[in-house]
Amino acid sequence: MTHVNGVAIQDIYPENVAYCYGCGRLNDQGLQIKSYADGDETVCHFVPRPYHMAIPGYVYGGLIASLIDCHGTGTASAAAYRKEGREMGTEPALRFVTASLQVDFLRPTPMGVALEVRGTIEEVKSRKVVVSATVSAGGEVCAKGKVVAVQMPAHLMPKQEPT
Amino acid sequence: MTHVNGVAIQDIYPENVAYCYGCGRLNDQGLQIKSYADGDETVCHFVPRPYHMAIPGYVYGGLIASLIDCHGTGTASAAAYRKEGREMGTEPALRFVTASLQVDFLRPTPMGVALEVRGTIEEVKSRKVVVSATVSAGGEVCAKGKVVAVQMPAHLMPKQEPT
Repeated sequence: MTHVNGVAIQDIYPENVAYCYGCGRLNDQGLQIKSYADGDETVCHFVPRPYHMAIPGYVYGGLIASLIDCHGTGTASAAAYRKEGREMGTEPALRFVTASLQVDFLRPTPMGVALEVRGTIEEVKSRKVVVSATVSAGGEVCAKGKVVAVQMPAHLMPKQEPT
Repeated sequence: MTHVNGVAIQDIYPENVAYCYGCGRLNDQGLQIKSYADGDETVCHFVPRPYHMAIPGYVYGGLIASLIDCHGTGTASAAAYRKEGREMGTEPALRFVTASLQVDFLRPTPMGVALEVRGTIEEVKSRKVVVSATVSAGGEVCAKGKVVAVQMPAHLMPKQEPT
């Protein structure tokens, strides 16, 4: 996977699809999850906020699911551009949504450290990409997951507002 | 399942495990997801906030996963109390965490309406409960999921602070 010069995959999404609560750069109240190419994998670092707890000391599972979700669709987008031999961010945009999400919580995920999400591309078809992911804290895998991502249907793609 | 007089399952969790970002009544910055018994099922209503979007007009999948997650563990708690013939909220607390979470997104979930999450108990063992769930908007099922919930290990259960 081509490294995108330190630019996050989500930061190259067109503006009209950059409002996602999980990863949209234009959603001021969102999580602003950022994924980067790292060789053939993708990587994301995220520090849960103190209120993102499940029980005191441990991270909320729904946040972990959100990290896997947005990192998965971001990885799918990067994989689809690569398969087409196109530069990330070129039009028409290849933006993916989640068809299914599976998360296995292997052990409690501690608060207070940056989590590392790693994505691996398992399958790339024309409109469907399967990504597996791990979520680690301090080098230990705490959760693993799988995202089946499908290309966003054209009728859902909001019209790009003229700027 | 005994109806708990209109009290949410999560509102009977002991204080020391009531800080969950998804459903803890003591987490002021959390989602405050509330689940109720409804005959043999459980039900939860939640209105996503405007910023909980995936793309404009549609709900963020990570939020849907969070609803299924917390509704699933709440349903598991209620099911475990019922199996033991105990009243909800009695000590020792039966509090569950998620071992695995599966979500299938069947169609885009529209913003601007209350979502209804319905939980069905699929299996109740001594320390493990399996719950299936649907998430509907305007009477149409938009997502379905499954939660494998396991009883919270004693060593993770925070000590109850004297009040």
